[in-house]
Amino acid sequence: MKIICSKNELLKSINISMKAVPSKTTMQILSCILFDASAKQIRLISNDMEIGIETIVEGSIVERGIIAIDAKIIYEIIRRLPDSDITISSDNRYNVTVLCEKSHFTIPGKPGDDFARLPYIEKDESLTLSQFTLKEMIRQTIFSIAMNENNPLMTGELFEIKNNFLRVVSLDGHRIAIRMLKLNRDYNDRKLIVPGKTLSEISKILSGEMDSQVSIYFSQNHILFEFEQTVVVSRLIEGEYFRVDQMLSADYATKVTVNNKDFYNCIDRATLLVKEGDKKPVVVNITDNNMELSINSTLGSMKEEVNIEKSGKDIVIGFNPRFLMDAMRVIDDELIDIYLVNPKAPCFIKDSEGTYIYLILPVNINQNSSF
Amino acid sequence: MKIICSKNELLKSINISMKAVPSKTTMQILSCILFDASAKQIRLISNDMEIGIETIVEGSIVERGIIAIDAKIIYEIIRRLPDSDITISSDNRYNVTVLCEKSHFTIPGKPGDDFARLPYIEKDESLTLSQFTLKEMIRQTIFSIAMNENNPLMTGELFEIKNNFLRVVSLDGHRIAIRMLKLNRDYNDRKLIVPGKTLSEISKILSGEMDSQVSIYFSQNHILFEFEQTVVVSRLIEGEYFRVDQMLSADYATKVTVNNKDFYNCIDRATLLVKEGDKKPVVVNITDNNMELSINSTLGSMKEEVNIEKSGKDIVIGFNPRFLMDAMRVIDDELIDIYLVNPKAPCFIKDSEGTYIYLILPVNINQNSSF
Repeated sequence: MKIICSKNELLKSINISMKAVPSKTTMQILSCILFDASAKQIRLISNDMEIGIETIVEGSIVERGIIAIDAKIIYEIIRRLPDSDITISSDNRYNVTVLCEKSHFTIPGKPGDDFARLPYIEKDESLTLSQFTLKEMIRQTIFSIAMNENNPLMTGELFEIKNNFLRVVSLDGHRIAIRMLKLNRDYNDRKLIVPGKTLSEISKILSGEMDSQVSIYFSQNHILFEFEQTVVVSRLIEGEYFRVDQMLSADYATKVTVNNKDFYNCIDRATLLVKEGDKKPVVVNITDNNMELSINSTLGSMKEEVNIEKSGKDIVIGFNPRFLMDAMRVIDDELIDIYLVNPKAPCFIKDSEGTYIYLILPVNINQNSSF
Repeated sequence: MKIICSKNELLKSINISMKAVPSKTTMQILSCILFDASAKQIRLISNDMEIGIETIVEGSIVERGIIAIDAKIIYEIIRRLPDSDITISSDNRYNVTVLCEKSHFTIPGKPGDDFARLPYIEKDESLTLSQFTLKEMIRQTIFSIAMNENNPLMTGELFEIKNNFLRVVSLDGHRIAIRMLKLNRDYNDRKLIVPGKTLSEISKILSGEMDSQVSIYFSQNHILFEFEQTVVVSRLIEGEYFRVDQMLSADYATKVTVNNKDFYNCIDRATLLVKEGDKKPVVVNITDNNMELSINSTLGSMKEEVNIEKSGKDIVIGFNPRFLMDAMRVIDDELIDIYLVNPKAPCFIKDSEGTYIYLILPVNINQNSSF
């Protein structure tokens, strides 16, 4: 194989490929990127058996061929080479040579035959979104997936197409995050659970531009994202997702409208009195036009008042401050509406259009252990 | 005690004080900053028993007094408060209250009596430099002090005043870094060894401005830096520093002039084939107008040519690439001169004015173990 690419094009594509290279693996071949110049285009392929990425590099093929190269080493080499044309070639003993101006690298490669190719997905119906929208929907929900794998369903996000809406849901047992998007044409109803890791890697690759599209295809066990020169395939999580609708309720006893940033900064100040790993709740005391936040810990105590607009009953309720902040951080609205029922029922932060719903369970402030 | 300061002034001073707060200590009181408002000004004092810092905060004293407050907590509180006036007060049970707009913090303080005050230094003769110059001299030498404390002398830097020059020297057994500065008036000759930790903390506090001065005073066991509203006192390292002059030699067999950045980038590329902890040398092969750099490791091999101007003999010599890069990184000159004697003698990178000298021992490339 012998190919010539510009440093910038090559680095951009390797950066994308790296997202599917496992940091640790027992299968040595997976720590490689496959350089496939066997057909008309130069393709870089990486695959950690959960996510697979195939991306096309601009460049010319001098001699067709295919070679697997250690991802970390080729990345470090390309990154440090001058901004110029780079020639990568391999011989029949799998030695790889990288040439750029006066630099000359020789590193061992591996035969490409062992490399795990991406699963084949039939491209029938596709869902098309702007890269910006998909990236935003992931950002606004990904924080409330569960980190541990006791329940695999909680490590993914539900993508549900129903009545021409796309609904993305994540939950971890303490909170739920929901984003809704009206689709611009008719789609068949569908439900799938996408691994959180796939979504966080995808959102690192997406350019986030309003006018670039991403097409999403589905099969029984896989999801495929196609955008620009890149295809990302991921396995899906099997199983029946939680019935979220029955956890949502439109009833409330208290409605509070508050400035998102003011409330966020206030909780942020309170959290500095919470030692890491400690589950101290903040106590929120809501009366007419006033909300007092307070916290007591071994480090000290803090209280602060925040201006609000309130309708309904007074209430005193406790929360894990991090859960409130996680939700408030991803809401772009200046003012947010918080709906409360009683000190033992979840609160909802949601907008009137129903584009987002964040449900957060309270903490019992009389016996902190119940959480 | 009761004082009122603006958030920004207070945060600036606490940031300075933090540099002398130990990250771990068995003496609880040292993890505090002493707020001393017992006289006409508000002083913040911190002391890790090696470095002590005293800095004045702009603000008003409502009630005189003195209190020690946990440094990390007060820093985190002040940092997150709104950009407004902050009132800090303490009662006779050492409870500290921090008020700012609608925020109200209560944290435990400690009596100030136990706090270790800064040692008294007679301010007779002082050496005055611009903050920029001192910061630069530290940056250009600090990297070659020794990290481990087997030889305490190597963990510090020699500050030597002689014939109206200030010479700063650091060495770690493999290399020496020297910076020379012509002083603008007569000073008494002096030699002192300043701990590396003091110098690196000082250079974080120095503004680095050309037209702000820093005055340096000495006693038998201490050095004192005074600038703007701040005083830093450090103990000195006792002992007789290494005789550097007899290691320096003006003789050479080969002189090479090379573009600093080109050579640096070339070594940087070579190092990516060196695994962490591995002591693989780069081999430098100098012939007329050409220098070839090469490296061989278990990861692969690399060679690259660099344009040079050369006078004297051809030479093949090995170096620890990191030692070359550390020196080259702090040299601002576009072209550097490298002087070599033979493959077993140190090389010198130095300018013709004698403002800097970097000596680096070579690595035996036939038996790599000798280094």
